This record gives sequence, structure tokens and C-alpha cells, in this order.
Amino acid sequence: MRNIKLTLEYLGTRYAGFQKQPNLPTIQGELEKVLQILLKEEVRITAAGRTDAGVHASCQVINFKTASTLDLRRLKWSANALLPPDIVIKRAEEVDLSFNARRNATFREYRYCILNRNHPSVFQRDLAHFISSPLNLAVLQRAAALLQGRHNFSAFCQADGREVNDYVRTVSDLSCGQKGDLIIIKIRADSFLPHMVRIVVGTLIQVGLGKLRPDEVGEILKSRDRTRAGPTAPAKGLILTGIEYPAGG
Amino acid sequence: MRNIKLTLEYLGTRYAGFQKQPNLPTIQGELEKVLQILLKEEVRITAAGRTDAGVHASCQVINFKTASTLDLRRLKWSANALLPPDIVIKRAEEVDLSFNARRNATFREYRYCILNRNHPSVFQRDLAHFISSPLNLAVLQRAAALLQGRHNFSAFCQADGREVNDYVRTVSDLSCGQKGDLIIIKIRADSFLPHMVRIVVGTLIQVGLGKLRPDEVGEILKSRDRTRAGPTAPAKGLILTGIEYPAGG
Repeated sequence: MRNIKLTLEYLGTRYAGFQKQPNLPTIQGELEKVLQILLKEEVRITAAGRTDAGVHASCQVINFKTASTLDLRRLKWSANALLPPDIVIKRAEEVDLSFNARRNATFREYRYCILNRNHPSVFQRDLAHFISSPLNLAVLQRAAALLQGRHNFSAFCQADGREVNDYVRTVSDLSCGQKGDLIIIKIRADSFLPHMVRIVVGTLIQVGLGKLRPDEVGEILKSRDRTRAGPTAPAKGLILTGIEYPAGG
Repeated sequence: MRNIKLTLEYLGTRYAGFQKQPNLPTIQGELEKVLQILLKEEVRITAAGRTDAGVHASCQVINFKTASTLDLRRLKWSANALLPPDIVIKRAEEVDLSFNARRNATFREYRYCILNRNHPSVFQRDLAHFISSPLNLAVLQRAAALLQGRHNFSAFCQADGREVNDYVRTVSDLSCGQKGDLIIIKIRADSFLPHMVRIVVGTLIQVGLGKLRPDEVGEILKSRDRTRAGPTAPAKGLILTGIEYPAGG
């Protein structure tokens, strides 16, 4: 038995999310279908981050176990030829049998892109949330600083029926930068609650637009009340950009 | 009568090119349709560069004359709301009645993007030509230098029935750079022959792959023989990035 780790990128636009669902296009569904063709056995993959419908990844990590001895370079090439063009395997490697892409991940990093100018962009159409009203980056940065650290993020979670036992997460980085007309919000945490990144971003946008004061974000965090935070920002601006493992993981 | 200059961006992927054609989706067709709705009169636009099917623009310039007194900010907003999301008006301005987007343009600039790594990219899928074999940037640059200046570019033209009277063009800049996994070829000329940029790029790729020597590109130029140049590179890697006008134009 071998344990195979794959690093992927995908455009989430066409998909109902990472996780397999009956009769809906999903990243997991497409991947398992192709891997089963190539490995000639049933394959069940485990992903580091189960991204929502419409969310992209430039660096997703999955693993699966297989009895197949297929060469990994060949696996990567063949899978990329069979996969739809909006899913690409960047790297395939054999790892220790104990490796689990989800359980072993110590940190996940996402980026959220906002196009902030007075007309949309054809090139960023599926990759950035377009806001024509000017955002104040300085106050957005002040509010973001209040969410860093270890907190109960109940106010920034929408579980939609999913079971959540513990709302405490450690946000080790939450920074907002500008690159031309794009505002890029980078967030890194041990793990994320359902919709957490997009609710954090939706709340920061309210601050950037002047509809919330930066210090109110601290109050919302303390309130643990989802109804006080901002709306969930659209999926298309969100990209899973990195998964970290302990050295050797 | 007013003369209106529009600066546009578009994704060429879905279109049969800029120029209007019966029963085919074109940039000109979409634009004229929307402008006619808003201005309530027939509109004929003139474009600085008539891009081919599948070619994109981050900066295309067009003009048209109108008797309408519609406010230009409103024209831009309304047109962007009515246009398909892969065509966007970036700027609308009134210019001198003598201005002609095509005739007055002194220089056009294009960029061609090649993704050069061992797996494709979902994010660059429609915007870069994917080549997995490593390209030698240094020899590509040496060959590019030979094409700069004023030359007869017959060998780099495929007119496909279009009438061409003069094959002499001035290439004022042809440079190749690297940005991560992307090789970006920038070319600036007074104007371009049909398919010229893509044949130049297709030839430079042959050099980068070691199938042509850099000095052979100079010989091909002198030969004026299209059959000796490389193949026409795919449209999707090409973007019209700039149009220059004399000061005040």
C-alpha cells in the first residue's frame, strides 16, 4: 500500500464545492473519477481544506491510499490530460503511510481579492469581488488587527447544519494590502469555521465602506453573535493559497 | 455632432474577433448593439486594432460619432451594465471631431504570454499559451533583437485574403521577459500585418525550443518567405495592451 499526496489548483466557478455530492459537479468527484480510471481501483481522497461552491485553490493538498504501483510522474501527466481544464495536479509525491492531508495540516492560508475601482475587469471577473465604492484600506487594516490571535469566532461562522463543537480558532495572520486596483486580504489560521473567511471579509468590507467603525469589529467578535457581523462575501473572490505541515509532513 | 472615444478591455475567448461578421459573436457587434440602445440612433465604431478571434485586449481604443447629448459617465455605466461581462468600457471621453481611433494611432502594443512549466494553470488557461518543454529565454531574446527596426515583414504575415499593399513595418520594441513561470513577449510597432504578432511569437518559440538558431530568424526576415517562419502561435496568449496617439489625440 502507498500513500500519495497531491497538490492541486482549481477554479471553483463551475463546481458545487470540493466535497462530493450526488448529481452535482465537485472537485472531489472529478478527481476520484479520474484516479479510479488510472489506478483501476476505488479511490477515496482526503483534502486539507474542503472549499465551498465557487471557491478556488492555487494550493490544495489531498491524499489517498493505493495498491497501484503506477509511476507518479505518469499519474500526474495522465490525470492532467483526463481532468477538466479547471482542475490541475501540480505535484504528486509518495508520503509516509501515516500522513493525512486534513489531520496533519497545521495552518491553512486563504486570500480574498477585491477589485476596487469604478469599472469591473474582464480578467478578474471570476477571481475578484468587484466593489466600485472606494474602500478605506487604513481602517480596514485597523479592524483586521483586532481579529488576529486566538478567539472564539462564533460571530464569524455560519454552519448551515454542519456540526461545530469548538468555535475557538487561532488566526496567526490577517493582513490587507493593495496591488494596483486590487485589495488583497490574506488570512492564515490553524483551521477555519464554516464560511469564516468570507464573513470576516464581508465585515471588513463594511468597515472599509465606513458602515462599521474598526473598533466595532472587536465588539462583534466578543458578542459571538453572527447577526452583528457583515454579510458573507461572494465565493468567487476567495482562493485557498496554502497548507502547511510539520517538517517532513 | 460629438466624437466619442472609448477605452475598452475584453476577453476574446468567446468571440470571432473584433470586426463585425454576420451571425457570429464579435466585440464590434456587441458594442454597437448596446450603444444603439443607449443613444437611440445607429452607431458605427472605428477601432484602433481589429483583433482576431480569441485575442484579448486590456486597452483597445474605439471612436464613434453621435448626435446624442447623453452624459458620458452615464453612458459608461449603462453600457457596462448592458454589455456581456467579458467586455468592459474603462473610459469614455469626448474628443475633437477630427479624431479617428484607427488612422491617428501612432503605435500599437501587444503582449504575448507563454506559461512555461511542466503543468498547465487553471488561472492562466484562457490567457497564456502553455508549453511544457523548457524555453531558452536568452536565445529567444537574441532572436527578438533581430526583428526590431524597420523591415519588410512579408515572412511574418498571413493575409488570408485580406489586401496588404505595404509589408514594411517599424517594430520599435520587441522584448522578452520572465515573471515566475510566465514568459512575456512585448511587441510595439506603428501597425501590424495580419497575424504578424502571432507568427513572430511562433518563430521565437521555435528558437526558444532549439529548433531554430537565433540568426536564422534574421535570414527568415530577409527571405520574405512565410513558409520559413514558425507556426502562428495560438490566439489565447495574445493581448492588445496599448494604443498611442500624438499628444492631444
